[in-house]
Amino acid sequence: MSKGALSGMAQYTAPLRRFGASSIARLAVLAIGISAITAYTVPELRMSAGGWLTACLWCCLAYFAVECGVRVRAAIGDGGIRKYILSPSGFIDLIGVLAVPVALLSGIAPPTAWLFAALWILKLAQSSPAVAQIGRVFVLEAKPLASVFALFLIVLFLSSAAMHVIERDQQPGPFGSLPRALWWGVATLTTTGYGDAIPITHLGRLLSSFVMICGIATFGLWTGILATGFAAESRRRNFIQTWDLVSTVPFFQSLDPSAITEITHMLRRLEVPERTTIIRRGKAGDCMYFIAAGEVQVDVKPTPIRLGAGAFFGELALLRADSVRTANVTATTQSTLLMLDLADFRTLTAHHPDLKRAIDAEGQRRTAENTAVRDLHRLGGASPS
Amino acid sequence: MSKGALSGMAQYTAPLRRFGASSIARLAVLAIGISAITAYTVPELRMSAGGWLTACLWCCLAYFAVECGVRVRAAIGDGGIRKYILSPSGFIDLIGVLAVPVALLSGIAPPTAWLFAALWILKLAQSSPAVAQIGRVFVLEAKPLASVFALFLIVLFLSSAAMHVIERDQQPGPFGSLPRALWWGVATLTTTGYGDAIPITHLGRLLSSFVMICGIATFGLWTGILATGFAAESRRRNFIQTWDLVSTVPFFQSLDPSAITEITHMLRRLEVPERTTIIRRGKAGDCMYFIAAGEVQVDVKPTPIRLGAGAFFGELALLRADSVRTANVTATTQSTLLMLDLADFRTLTAHHPDLKRAIDAEGQRRTAENTAVRDLHRLGGASPS
Amino acid sequence: MSKGALSGMAQYTAPLRRFGASSIARLAVLAIGISAITAYTVPELRMSAGGWLTACLWCCLAYFAVECGVRVRAAIGDGGIRKYILSPSGFIDLIGVLAVPVALLSGIAPPTAWLFAALWILKLAQSSPAVAQIGRVFVLEAKPLASVFALFLIVLFLSSAAMHVIERDQQPGPFGSLPRALWWGVATLTTTGYGDAIPITHLGRLLSSFVMICGIATFGLWTGILATGFAAESRRRNFIQTWDLVSTVPFFQSLDPSAITEITHMLRRLEVPERTTIIRRGKAGDCMYFIAAGEVQVDVKPTPIRLGAGAFFGELALLRADSVRTANVTATTQSTLLMLDLADFRTLTAHHPDLKRAIDAEGQRRTAENTAVRDLHRLGGASPS
Amino acid sequence: MSKGALSGMAQYTAPLRRFGASSIARLAVLAIGISAITAYTVPELRMSAGGWLTACLWCCLAYFAVECGVRVRAAIGDGGIRKYILSPSGFIDLIGVLAVPVALLSGIAPPTAWLFAALWILKLAQSSPAVAQIGRVFVLEAKPLASVFALFLIVLFLSSAAMHVIERDQQPGPFGSLPRALWWGVATLTTTGYGDAIPITHLGRLLSSFVMICGIATFGLWTGILATGFAAESRRRNFIQTWDLVSTVPFFQSLDPSAITEITHMLRRLEVPERTTIIRRGKAGDCMYFIAAGEVQVDVKPTPIRLGAGAFFGELALLRADSVRTANVTATTQSTLLMLDLADFRTLTAHHPDLKRAIDAEGQRRTAENTAVRDLHRLGGASPS
Repeated sequence: MSKGALSGMAQYTAPLRRFGASSIARLAVLAIGISAITAYTVPELRMSAGGWLTACLWCCLAYFAVECGVRVRAAIGDGGIRKYILSPSGFIDLIGVLAVPVALLSGIAPPTAWLFAALWILKLAQSSPAVAQIGRVFVLEAKPLASVFALFLIVLFLSSAAMHVIERDQQPGPFGSLPRALWWGVATLTTTGYGDAIPITHLGRLLSSFVMICGIATFGLWTGILATGFAAESRRRNFIQTWDLVSTVPFFQSLDPSAITEITHMLRRLEVPERTTIIRRGKAGDCMYFIAAGEVQVDVKPTPIRLGAGAFFGELALLRADSVRTANVTATTQSTLLMLDLADFRTLTAHHPDLKRAIDAEGQRRTAENTAVRDLHRLGGASPS
Repeated sequence: MSKGALSGMAQYTAPLRRFGASSIARLAVLAIGISAITAYTVPELRMSAGGWLTACLWCCLAYFAVECGVRVRAAIGDGGIRKYILSPSGFIDLIGVLAVPVALLSGIAPPTAWLFAALWILKLAQSSPAVAQIGRVFVLEAKPLASVFALFLIVLFLSSAAMHVIERDQQPGPFGSLPRALWWGVATLTTTGYGDAIPITHLGRLLSSFVMICGIATFGLWTGILATGFAAESRRRNFIQTWDLVSTVPFFQSLDPSAITEITHMLRRLEVPERTTIIRRGKAGDCMYFIAAGEVQVDVKPTPIRLGAGAFFGELALLRADSVRTANVTATTQSTLLMLDLADFRTLTAHHPDLKRAIDAEGQRRTAENTAVRDLHRLGGASPS
Repeated sequence: MSKGALSGMAQYTAPLRRFGASSIARLAVLAIGISAITAYTVPELRMSAGGWLTACLWCCLAYFAVECGVRVRAAIGDGGIRKYILSPSGFIDLIGVLAVPVALLSGIAPPTAWLFAALWILKLAQSSPAVAQIGRVFVLEAKPLASVFALFLIVLFLSSAAMHVIERDQQPGPFGSLPRALWWGVATLTTTGYGDAIPITHLGRLLSSFVMICGIATFGLWTGILATGFAAESRRRNFIQTWDLVSTVPFFQSLDPSAITEITHMLRRLEVPERTTIIRRGKAGDCMYFIAAGEVQVDVKPTPIRLGAGAFFGELALLRADSVRTANVTATTQSTLLMLDLADFRTLTAHHPDLKRAIDAEGQRRTAENTAVRDLHRLGGASPS
Repeated sequence: MSKGALSGMAQYTAPLRRFGASSIARLAVLAIGISAITAYTVPELRMSAGGWLTACLWCCLAYFAVECGVRVRAAIGDGGIRKYILSPSGFIDLIGVLAVPVALLSGIAPPTAWLFAALWILKLAQSSPAVAQIGRVFVLEAKPLASVFALFLIVLFLSSAAMHVIERDQQPGPFGSLPRALWWGVATLTTTGYGDAIPITHLGRLLSSFVMICGIATFGLWTGILATGFAAESRRRNFIQTWDLVSTVPFFQSLDPSAITEITHMLRRLEVPERTTIIRRGKAGDCMYFIAAGEVQVDVKPTPIRLGAGAFFGELALLRADSVRTANVTATTQSTLLMLDLADFRTLTAHHPDLKRAIDAEGQRRTAENTAVRDLHRLGGASPS
């Protein structure tokens, strides 16, 4: 799957979100549909509750059809229905809607035709934010992955051919032909070990042991490549997601480009829905936040404070000796935050004393304010001074 | 499990340590309890030694009840019994104490009711220092992990549906319905390979081979993501643990913040119990230590030297050509040390010649002192000069 | 396999490419040959279609013989036929051609003799670009890998000996001798678990559990070593591949050597065949390209622009707020590109404001040009001004 | 196994190497001994060739006894026989020598007594250079590894208890008691899947699927931790091994400490035995070498040149456009080399233009010399000018 194709998925799910169908409702319908299909294939359940299951399946199909329709309309609005259909997301939508009706109309028996509803599971890929990221790792590391796969095939084929020669006289059943020996090979090399084809000669067992160890090596190489690729991709993705947001925070605008690059690598984007409590009073704090978009409410007594885009909060815990959060902070709207870890906060302020001073000043101002207000409160009245 | 919840675990185990119940005793009781439960489910053992086992289980339950009581009292002292109960640690304590009595009172037969004591194994999580760290990795890498899991589900469901179609006529037993085919799918995709459901058609075996290879890929991705996340988290955690301690060492106070950040990444915190021998004479040395808290004793002849918080030791081996430790060093109280590796020592002193000079001077002073004292000793008397 | 030997593979495949036999045709012949061999070992297929299969196999053999002949001639031209034969690639070629005829001439029955054609699968290694890279990782990490293997052998042998003692009286079949117990050991330690040798005593099961957990640890170590080695090798290989190309781009020539080193680590080499569309209009863009060799065509209206070696393109999307590609870009000949990622682009331009300014200027010039031309076009005529 | 204990292994193998017994001979004796033991446990072989096998075993035992004796004598010379016996290497030596005789004297039947010779396999750990390194990773990462193991135990125990409840009525055999259910649990959680205990209820299968997936997660975490730890340890070990050698190369002595630290991270130590060909003429070269100890011979015509400690070679290929090695280089004695990779060479010379200039000058001098000598040679005589 190409990188461009995968990033296209996110693009076409946006209209639906505007339509109001929440992701959770969608996943619920998907879960119901998949469960219904699974139940429908059990002969006993089909006998006893076939009608209900079919009804349930038709409902899910209708939901997906409406969803697909909404997206098609949105795609027309955007000017490219062909582009939508050819995108992976559009293809998944269409196949989910059309597969079962087409199968039913082709005269396939309903119990088999409804099996095409299993394709609905592909919709999970649409809801997974990191599928594109994983796809990109596979694309970028394609060469070494293909080479490991080639080595896998070489070991598989040569060992199966050897095993066929070694065991065919003793066990004509599982090793009598190369395809059968290959079946043994793949189950052994992936260390699955079904146990339906097991060598019994000494030479066969020695070869089998070698194949199992090669299987571990294959695992190891495969994982090593993916881990390397994923680490690079992860770092890159975080940078790109954070870069544009950093420029929205006035606090960073005094910095030179080189410092901004450094900070961008440190920050982590965080999307929080409305009414999420970001910081809980009394908990230990190990990060501070910058608001890239949205608004949060700091529950200080007597009047909560609201902070909008460009502001920062949560720095007090990093400056205090006991690292304890002093107030609840809640998102009042869906907000995009940039999280700065304690470790990175220390590194950043060490390299940029100006930032340190600015945060300290703001922190002291806030602490003083809190204390003053609280003192007033304790004295029995909130005087206007 | 949320990050905050996990860090809460460590918090509530502290009172108990003050109470004097050592972690080792606790683990011993846990091991006895778990063994007793395991033995109790074996009918023969229950017949022959049921009384003893039940007595043993009641003792363990009593121990955990006392432990829980101590913590509850401590929690009341801290002001938050509700907070304690809702914390994972409190929940584990309470469920460990209440599950079995409640089950017995509900009229469940004792052999079954005592099975709830298996929940005691959760106490292992309370004693594991890095559970919070591992939990954080899962939280931070949730998106890619969820996406890999979505891909896993997609392959699982589609391949099981296909296998159901392919094999249902040949093998109605293991592949006759989708739930049964899913059972094959999960055992194959995780490369477990029980061997109770094995495809026999050519197409089925080809599909099965594909599923096994997807299983390896899933492994690889999963591991790659966790390795990436764990490396970042590990580095971050070490920084946070070390940062506050670095400022307690006067030796580092002359450095600018940027250098302190650099050093913090190099140091490794080490908690040593009383009477631990940190350095053994004659061994090869590849690190030096700074004392953040506690006290150590250097066994030089004739009078051992005591070093307290802020001092450093073990630097001689790094300066000598043969890297050999010249004296035993033992912790006289529970101490917190900061370990500096040879490789990092070289890097640090290369970047900060002042530190190098200070350590060299101290090293020469100590060597001279040792030699002088030893010479005196050899001459037959320790003169006061 | 030594590093030099592996890099030799690529060297000897070059002449063939000059001969015109494309890699795809070669893989197709290989796939046909391997399939024919596999089918030939199935008695039923050999009975019914043996003639066709043999004919097919002879054709493949002839193809590989011609291929080998071409390479031998090229090797003579290069001056070293002995060098060619001793290289892995030459050895694979020769064994692929000679194994079957030699076996047939030695009087081995054809069904068995043709099995030597399974060696053709080795040709996959010749076509895999990263086999040398993987081989190098194994060479460089040989010591730790060998140590893990030693630990694997120690656990395997000691646990098998212990299991032999524990289970030999209960199960003389699978555990009656050390070789049989070793068969259990290897299937368990690699977590394959065939299920033909399973301990039934309590002690045996406990030991078996320990062996399985050691198996996971072995996996983990193995993978950890390979991941570490692969990350280093991957970085190194990318640098070497990119370094020489960077000097061909005039744009970078003003930089000092230290900056060029930095850039070389950021760029990624990309070989694109003729007529590949590198950039698609309307897609989101997250990288720019420098042309190291070859030529691309930018499809701007009304006259497409051609860019040759040394030029760059794709920078507009990185400078625009919406990151959208404004034109298709297609390679007109086979080209070598250097890809610069958005994240690295930001970092690079932050560190080198000159580059930023140069790219900005070029970007503005192009945008202005495009707009001007399009305006003219819209007005109805392309005036020469 | 503690770090110090492990590094002790290498220490005690040194005397033997002085004694002349090469590592290869030792491994051969070990292989013969282990094979003899394995064969000896097969009743048929013991019947037919028992005498020969016993003789062979006694010979191996004698060899190990002599070896152990040599080491004991060397240890006495070093002053610490107790230290030797308590070291892992000494313990392995002694147990290898004493286990079988003690067992025979205790009256155990010979076929069983000889099984203790399986302990000889431990000698593999003595010959493995990276066992200490791997041990250190386990020590340093002990906390997270223990936590993963705790999570493993929690999942194992709770799922086994649940499975016992779910399946005990249907399958009293494999799930009738908790120990039996634990056997299922460990085989499933490690994804071994023997297939002797398989859930048949729907709930049991669902739980089993969950356990398998937890097994993959455990794998992933374990590997992630080990990979992270191994990468850090590998880097650290390389630094320590290289540091002392760097100071022996005059070429680096003009550099400031910070640059030396940088270079130390780039160099890789390489031990080559006598008569090893390090560079082969005509191969592509991607690294240069510095001689830390020993001597190499460069096979230039007409008179080979010898280079001793402190010199460097192999730089020509890095400076030439075609990267081809121009002469064979062979070690004349056992030598210690420092390898500098092409990628690191570029980075290093970019940061330190002085080094670049020095290497260039030496390279040009050598090329000129070679050309001049060759020209003379071609003209028919080697005139003294």
